[in-house]
Amino acid sequence: MNQFPRNDFSQLNPPVRTLMGPGPSDIHPRVLQAMAAPTIGHLDPAFIRIMDEIKTLLQSLFQTKNDITFPVSGTGSAGMEACMVNVVEPGDRVVICRNGVFGARMADIAQRLGAELVEVVVPFGEAFDLGMIEEAIGGKPTKLVGVVHAETSTGVCQALPEIAALAHRVDALLLADCVTSLGGMPVNLDAWGVDLAYSGTQKCLSCPPGLAPVSFSPRAVQALKDRKTKVVSWYLDLTMLLNYWGGERAYHHTAPINMLYGLREALLVVLEEGLEAVYARHRRNHEALVAGIEAMGLRMLVEPQLRLPQLNTIVIPDGVDDGAVRRALLQDYNIEIGGGLGALKGKVWRVGLMGHASRRENVVTFLAALESILSGQKASIQRGKALEAAAAV
Amino acid sequence: MNQFPRNDFSQLNPPVRTLMGPGPSDIHPRVLQAMAAPTIGHLDPAFIRIMDEIKTLLQSLFQTKNDITFPVSGTGSAGMEACMVNVVEPGDRVVICRNGVFGARMADIAQRLGAELVEVVVPFGEAFDLGMIEEAIGGKPTKLVGVVHAETSTGVCQALPEIAALAHRVDALLLADCVTSLGGMPVNLDAWGVDLAYSGTQKCLSCPPGLAPVSFSPRAVQALKDRKTKVVSWYLDLTMLLNYWGGERAYHHTAPINMLYGLREALLVVLEEGLEAVYARHRRNHEALVAGIEAMGLRMLVEPQLRLPQLNTIVIPDGVDDGAVRRALLQDYNIEIGGGLGALKGKVWRVGLMGHASRRENVVTFLAALESILSGQKASIQRGKALEAAAAV
Repeated sequence: MNQFPRNDFSQLNPPVRTLMGPGPSDIHPRVLQAMAAPTIGHLDPAFIRIMDEIKTLLQSLFQTKNDITFPVSGTGSAGMEACMVNVVEPGDRVVICRNGVFGARMADIAQRLGAELVEVVVPFGEAFDLGMIEEAIGGKPTKLVGVVHAETSTGVCQALPEIAALAHRVDALLLADCVTSLGGMPVNLDAWGVDLAYSGTQKCLSCPPGLAPVSFSPRAVQALKDRKTKVVSWYLDLTMLLNYWGGERAYHHTAPINMLYGLREALLVVLEEGLEAVYARHRRNHEALVAGIEAMGLRMLVEPQLRLPQLNTIVIPDGVDDGAVRRALLQDYNIEIGGGLGALKGKVWRVGLMGHASRRENVVTFLAALESILSGQKASIQRGKALEAAAAV
Repeated sequence: MNQFPRNDFSQLNPPVRTLMGPGPSDIHPRVLQAMAAPTIGHLDPAFIRIMDEIKTLLQSLFQTKNDITFPVSGTGSAGMEACMVNVVEPGDRVVICRNGVFGARMADIAQRLGAELVEVVVPFGEAFDLGMIEEAIGGKPTKLVGVVHAETSTGVCQALPEIAALAHRVDALLLADCVTSLGGMPVNLDAWGVDLAYSGTQKCLSCPPGLAPVSFSPRAVQALKDRKTKVVSWYLDLTMLLNYWGGERAYHHTAPINMLYGLREALLVVLEEGLEAVYARHRRNHEALVAGIEAMGLRMLVEPQLRLPQLNTIVIPDGVDDGAVRRALLQDYNIEIGGGLGALKGKVWRVGLMGHASRRENVVTFLAALESILSGQKASIQRGKALEAAAAV
């Protein structure tokens, strides 16, 4: 048997970062504390009660009465796959709106499932015009229309009610990616007519990554019941998952107990502050950040009325070294922000103000650090204006 | 917006159980502590180092040089699905050995993937005769032979090297379910010729559920490269996962950071004790439990040479109320054990002695509690013998 080189492994000692990237975001201390509570069994009566509570709390956050509202045991992308794999069958017509990385991921999954894929494409950083979506649907029988509510790769918000109405006209289901929106801005599934939604724990819920809250409307559940083929994924097959999360409590897979402790606490933290107050805080810190950024002479990628409060894309000024700036933020200030993805690689910074990370002190620390680093790079910026502008918001 | 009924939700306060069921098992305190370390980004250089360490530690535990050894972001069943979905294509011939619930699950997944399924079936509680497997393979081109190393639903151990040799004769890959074996008994992937293996964190690794360590041999990787069709699951597609866990570190999905902290610590705990010492401890506590159970006049389901040390199936004596006994253990002694699954429902108790739960004090507490409860039910047992018999081991 191999000798184990114990000395190669130091005690776990991760650096203390301020997480202002596209997620994970800063974790609320109460969440980490909850995750360290003693593990109990996934069929323990005490755990069944916790599951019921999580479901109720998620329904409040999603603003839905959907009975099928629970966290999938995987990260946000598992939530996306869970929503799609349960309702899309080979040959189904699926319309996907793609204006960023996550719309592209939906399209990829639709193809893997053998769907007849129709894409509506606009450039990264833009939102969709309803006419384009209407044209893509084209009055034809369609199983699903997929759209990203808050595109984490670009910082664009897409309004959902009108798209839901278009989808429903041809009896299609509306699927919405709410990974970055849930807990940071209003998400009203029932009022908006969203049939399938998924999110992640590591954005505005201030909880570590690892779970994907999902919600299925009665129409989506009916589509699942009407399937002609078996769901191709055993792990994500809702018919079986519901035997565990629903009435029977039959064993399917072993639920990630401690992550679920964390999610319960995270949801309580949000709901104790109150949804209106949480959304207002995200909005205000976003406005302070934008004021500071613009006062520095930098430019936001997305036009004002489409901007997400929790994910801010700043255009990297000409001549500035993207990697060097992000490295300096991380190494000298322990601040993590994100770089651009896909078409925006090297062109933008993505600054998250999500959940517990959406705090005034984070806004000013970031602005001060960025100004200092850009000055060191001799970038052409306005100095000494950003903090005052942010403070005025 | 809904009013939030804060008073309906008490502070998280799960009971402190001794987890002696089929998993989750008792968590090592160092693991819970590690999970509460500050979350960092999934592309943070400090996290990349932790990922490398986890890979090295898993290689030690699996006794493999497989470069593709890493934890899938889901529970053990996601590991099973990850192994199968990456190598099985529609029409592939797949031989699954089924002697319990988890073999049946493999067969279910194979069918969902459109495989030509051949099953080798023996009753719950028994192991496979090599002749049966050889006959099922039948010298025909076969993509995969699947077998459960440690069947959690029955407590049966299946030797793997001979089955690997049979599989390799027709150039098939050997897939082994090591969910309950890893960390509790020898698992030697390379020496045994196992091509694909998966495990879970919540059994002998003394870590909460949520991750599925997997390992792919070079032959398995070649099968993935030779695919004619795209992997049907985006979330579990190894070609993309490897861009993150391999050299490029390209973003795929957001890794469950704090769960990975926990896994790293759990692997260190096992390797610090030493694999030989860990396996000997599991063996000895198992022998003590069996001595106590038999001294009480009860019977083990599985014959001695096939018994798993970490999962003990005790036949429920006639006239004893299964549910009442397990409820009394949980309510009066805070001990969780498992009931029977599938064909064994109501017929056996499953007593786990896994990882941190494999401790002498757990053995004696369980024996004492069980004897007391059975005496209360007026079951016909030998009283006052169990503890002495266990102590003699």
